[in-house]
Amino acid sequence: MYNFAVIGLGYVGLRVAYNLAKNDYNVIGFDINEKRITELQNNYDHNLDINTDLLSLVNITYTNDPEQLSKANFYFIDIDTPINQQRDPDITALKKACETLSSYIKPNDIIVIESTVAPGTTEDILIEIFECGSQLKSGKDFFVGYSPERIVPGDLKHDLSNTAKIIAAQNKETLHEIKKIYEKLINAPVALAKSIKVAEAAKILENIQRDINIALMNEFATFTKKMDISIYDVIDVAKTKWNFIPFTPGLVGGHCIPVDPYYLISQAKDNDVETPLISTAREVNNKMVDYISHLVLDNRSPGKVLILGLSYKQDIADVRNSLSIALYHLLTSKTKTVMTHDPIAYIDKASVNMQDWEQINNIDTLIVTVAHERFKHLPKTELLKKLNPNALIIDIPNIFHNMFTENDNVKYWSF
Amino acid sequence: MYNFAVIGLGYVGLRVAYNLAKNDYNVIGFDINEKRITELQNNYDHNLDINTDLLSLVNITYTNDPEQLSKANFYFIDIDTPINQQRDPDITALKKACETLSSYIKPNDIIVIESTVAPGTTEDILIEIFECGSQLKSGKDFFVGYSPERIVPGDLKHDLSNTAKIIAAQNKETLHEIKKIYEKLINAPVALAKSIKVAEAAKILENIQRDINIALMNEFATFTKKMDISIYDVIDVAKTKWNFIPFTPGLVGGHCIPVDPYYLISQAKDNDVETPLISTAREVNNKMVDYISHLVLDNRSPGKVLILGLSYKQDIADVRNSLSIALYHLLTSKTKTVMTHDPIAYIDKASVNMQDWEQINNIDTLIVTVAHERFKHLPKTELLKKLNPNALIIDIPNIFHNMFTENDNVKYWSF
Repeated sequence: MYNFAVIGLGYVGLRVAYNLAKNDYNVIGFDINEKRITELQNNYDHNLDINTDLLSLVNITYTNDPEQLSKANFYFIDIDTPINQQRDPDITALKKACETLSSYIKPNDIIVIESTVAPGTTEDILIEIFECGSQLKSGKDFFVGYSPERIVPGDLKHDLSNTAKIIAAQNKETLHEIKKIYEKLINAPVALAKSIKVAEAAKILENIQRDINIALMNEFATFTKKMDISIYDVIDVAKTKWNFIPFTPGLVGGHCIPVDPYYLISQAKDNDVETPLISTAREVNNKMVDYISHLVLDNRSPGKVLILGLSYKQDIADVRNSLSIALYHLLTSKTKTVMTHDPIAYIDKASVNMQDWEQINNIDTLIVTVAHERFKHLPKTELLKKLNPNALIIDIPNIFHNMFTENDNVKYWSF
Repeated sequence: MYNFAVIGLGYVGLRVAYNLAKNDYNVIGFDINEKRITELQNNYDHNLDINTDLLSLVNITYTNDPEQLSKANFYFIDIDTPINQQRDPDITALKKACETLSSYIKPNDIIVIESTVAPGTTEDILIEIFECGSQLKSGKDFFVGYSPERIVPGDLKHDLSNTAKIIAAQNKETLHEIKKIYEKLINAPVALAKSIKVAEAAKILENIQRDINIALMNEFATFTKKMDISIYDVIDVAKTKWNFIPFTPGLVGGHCIPVDPYYLISQAKDNDVETPLISTAREVNNKMVDYISHLVLDNRSPGKVLILGLSYKQDIADVRNSLSIALYHLLTSKTKTVMTHDPIAYIDKASVNMQDWEQINNIDTLIVTVAHERFKHLPKTELLKKLNPNALIIDIPNIFHNMFTENDNVKYWSF
C-alpha cells in the first residue's frame, strides 16, 4: 500500500491530490507557498478549479513542511516549469523541489514527474539530483517515472479523470506500478510511451502543435482583415472539410502553450537543431499585442481605454503570461488612461488599474480580449452605457459579432 | 435544362465531368491537351483516378475544339493554377482558358470557377476577362460563381461525391442554381460562403493548414532524431490526447499543398501583410530534400543510389512538384550513380533514370520516399537481394519499420 505525496499544488498537483484522496489513499499535499497551503487547508482553491464543497469532502494533509514527505513512498512532482524574462526555460523551482525531496527518498520509493520538461531532463538532470541527495541509485534502490500532465484549465469536458494519460518509467515493473495507480485515478486509457524521453517530447509536441495552429490563424486573420473579409466566415466554410481543424485567432497566454515551445527551442539549440517554424509561431503569437496596440493608437486618439478581460483564457482566474496584461503595459506606455476589468482574474488589482464594473464609464476604446461567459451575456444597452459616442470596440474573441448596428454610433472591429 | 462544359480535364475537371455525365446531363469535356483528349476518348485516364470501365459507362464529349463550348450554357473551370520556377503564382493558363471561354459566353450563362486562386482573383481578374471578351456584363447578363475543388488524389475514402462543397456566387439566384447542380453531383453538404473571396480564402487556408502541420512534424522529427527518439513513437502517444492531430513527417509535393501557400504569400505581399509563418513552413518542407541528401552524402560514399518512389504521394501516378524528383536532381549533381524506380508514376523514364525492378541490383543507398502499397508489401528477402552488404536504407515514410535486424547487415534509418 502506497502513501502518496504530491509536490506542487497548482492546478495540476491539486487535481492529482484530489483524485488520489477520492480513492481513499493517504495523501500529503506539499507546496512551499504558505498562502496556498492556508487557503487549501480551508478548502479554498483560488484557481476556482475545484470548489470548496468538493474539497471539503476529501482528506488531504496540506503542508509546507518538507519533513512530512518522509511519510510517503510514492511521489508526484507537479512543479510549474516557466520561462524567465528572456523567455528561456527556468526549471529552478523544479530542481529545488527535487532537491528537497531527495533527502526523503527511501529504498523502493517511486517518483513520478508530471511537470513539462524538455526531452532528456528527467534522466539527465532530475535523476542525478535525486541520486545525489539520497545517496541511493535510481532504477535499483528507487524508481522514477514520467507522466506529462494534460490538464486544460477551464475545460469542463476534459479533465484529469477523462483524459488519456501517457506514462513512461525507468523499467517495466515501475511502469506497471505507475499504470495501476493512474488507472485508479482516471477513467481513460493509460498509454505506455517507449521511453521517458518519448513521453517528455509528446507533451511538448502537443502544445507546440496548438501554438503553431493558433499562430497560423492569427497570421491568416491579419491577411483576411486586410482583404476585407472575416476569418470567422472563412473558418465557417473551411471546417466543412473533414480534415480541417477549426482553430481561431486570439491572444495566446498561460503556462503551457506560450511556454513549452521555448523548452523545445532551447533544447534544440543546445543540440544544433534549427527550429525556425516553432520560433516563428511564437513571434507571430506574441506580436498580436503590437497588432492590437496599433489598432488602438493609429489614426485616432484612443481616449479612455478599457481592457475587458485579463485571464489568459476564458472562464479561468489564471493570468500567467496573459497577453492582455502585456497589452495593458504596452498601452500604458503609449497613452494616458488605460484601465482593466475582469471579475474572475486572480491578480493584484492595482498592478493593472483594475476597476469595478460600476465605476466604469465614458470609455472611448473598449478592447475585449477574452470570451468570459459573463462578457458574452452583457446586454448591448449596458455596454453602450459605458461607451462614449463613436467609441471603438475591438472584439478579439468575436463575441459581440452582429450585435451593433449603425444606429449604435460605435465603431466595431473584429477579425 | 443546362448543357454543361468542363474546361480543363485534370483530376478535378474529369471528376466533375464524370459526375455530371453519371447524372445524364449533356457534358462537353474540353482540354487543350490533344494527347489527354485522345486518351479520354479511349476512356483512358492516365492519372488512374477513374478506371476505363467506369469511363466507358458514361457519355462525355471530349474535345479540344473551343467552338464546342458554344453549345454549353453552364461552365465549370478546372484549370491547374501552378507556380513558376521562382515559386510565384502562375495563372496564365487559367486566364487563357477564361479568355477562350469569353468568346462563347451568352446571356444567362453560368460560370463556376473551381481552380484554386488567391482571394479576389475571380472578381478582380477573371470576371474582367469574361466581360471584355463577351462584351456582356457579369451579374446582369451572365453569372459567375466560385467553388473550390477539394479533391484529394488517391484518397479512396474522400472524393468529389462525399466531400462537402463550398460555393459562392455573385448573387443569390446564381448561388441557388449552382447549389442545385452540386446537390445532384455530390452526396454531402453544400456550404454557402458569404462571398466569393471567402470561398477563395477557405481553400487556400485548408491547404496552408496542412502544409504548416506537416512542416511542424518535419521540424520536430529532425529534433527527435537528434535526441535519439523516433517521432513515430512520440506521435503514437501524443495522439491519445483528444485534440492532437497526428500529422507525420514527409516530402510535401503535388499541385496543392506546396503551391497554394505561394498564392497567399504573393497576395499578402501585394497587400503589405507579412506571412512569416506560412513562408517558413514552405522553407522547412522544401529543405527536407537537403536534409535527406545530407543523410546520403555525409560521412560515407553513397555508392549506387536508388530512389524508390517518384509520385508526390502514395498510390497515385502524379509527379507534379514531387520532392523525390527534386531529390533525384540534387543527388545527381553530387554523386555518380543515382537511379529511380516507381511502377505507377506517370513520367518520362529517361528524365529520372528510371529502371525496371528486375534490372536493379547492388544498391548501396536505398531511399524510400513514398509509401506505395506495393512497396509496403515488398518481402524483406527481395529487398535484401537488391542491396549490397552494409547498404544504407533511408525510409522516409517509415514503411520498413522493425523489419531489419542486425543479421541483415544493413543500416536502417527512419525518423
